[in-house]
Amino acid sequence: MYVVCLDLEGVLVPEIWINVAKKTGIDELKLTTRDISDYNALMKRRIAILDENNLKLKDIQDVIATMDPLDGAEEFLEKLRELTQVIILSDTFTQFAKPLMKKLRWPVIFCNELVIDSSDRISDFALRQQDGKKHAVRGFHSMGFKVVASGDSYNDLSMIREADSGALFCPPEKIVKDNPDLPVAMTHKELLEIIKSLVE
Amino acid sequence: MYVVCLDLEGVLVPEIWINVAKKTGIDELKLTTRDISDYNALMKRRIAILDENNLKLKDIQDVIATMDPLDGAEEFLEKLRELTQVIILSDTFTQFAKPLMKKLRWPVIFCNELVIDSSDRISDFALRQQDGKKHAVRGFHSMGFKVVASGDSYNDLSMIREADSGALFCPPEKIVKDNPDLPVAMTHKELLEIIKSLVE
Repeated sequence: MYVVCLDLEGVLVPEIWINVAKKTGIDELKLTTRDISDYNALMKRRIAILDENNLKLKDIQDVIATMDPLDGAEEFLEKLRELTQVIILSDTFTQFAKPLMKKLRWPVIFCNELVIDSSDRISDFALRQQDGKKHAVRGFHSMGFKVVASGDSYNDLSMIREADSGALFCPPEKIVKDNPDLPVAMTHKELLEIIKSLVE
Repeated sequence: MYVVCLDLEGVLVPEIWINVAKKTGIDELKLTTRDISDYNALMKRRIAILDENNLKLKDIQDVIATMDPLDGAEEFLEKLRELTQVIILSDTFTQFAKPLMKKLRWPVIFCNELVIDSSDRISDFALRQQDGKKHAVRGFHSMGFKVVASGDSYNDLSMIREADSGALFCPPEKIVKDNPDLPVAMTHKELLEIIKSLVE
């Protein structure tokens, strides 16, 4: 029996922070784990930038409300959920994910939480645990599942390596070069075919 | 951060085997974990009865195709999935669950698998692991989640006891009497309110 673990941003929905950067005109918010692989350092920098620009939670949520799933992602996820059990593993936050989960018809997502102060300022963030994606795969193994994992970025590699098998989705060239053994899908259709072959 | 673990039969959908018993007229198939708390013994007996009556997988699936979620279950589950992460933990089988999961809009379900031979006969069953519901709760704990669990029957007690908190849904009197500390919900509305109070 299988669980398929999927990254969210870059696989099912656009990168949230890049959209915030575009809407706000603050270029530095375009940094992602593709650029800074230390997620804690990246988040601290993002929160500092929001403070410098007096941006509150609602400003970010307003941007997210305008976002839609990536082209083809809804159909891909629907087919995958008919085939097997799917859990989204993401480094994003419950406060950001909700409107996107609604558009994806409420798949299960395991992510993190923002700490919001009384003025609606994002004051901190609470990771559920360090390297949560990898530990989630371990947890599913402890439940007797085989795990297939897929993502697009550095923060997905430990999850994919902990899983029984996996695939990269539209990854940057450097990740492909450093991980020549992993299959690469460039479309949702390709990813669905790869996952089908891995779970059957 | 919370995961809510829900039993399937008796909570979201009717008891599958009781429906099969009614449709086939074989009274002995009405036995459930409410009657025989040893699940392995119960399943071996069910398979023997199917063989005695020459009933194949398709006969059971034909019955399941006529079943609908319990009154109020769809709305309950939809509201719960908006509120938090929900995983159905069930002792049923993937081959039985699928048409019901479609009607419930593809929630995640962790269950077991039937072994089907070339003549479509149910020849055996494969548990993902012994006491899978309890181990699933342990697995979610290992991922940094708090767990709320709810079910109606004996086979839900180890899951509820392993969880941080839980509630019984329409349970038999004996379970209520033996577990006086557990809150009891008699409607989906009550269960939603109890779970809300536990995860907030």
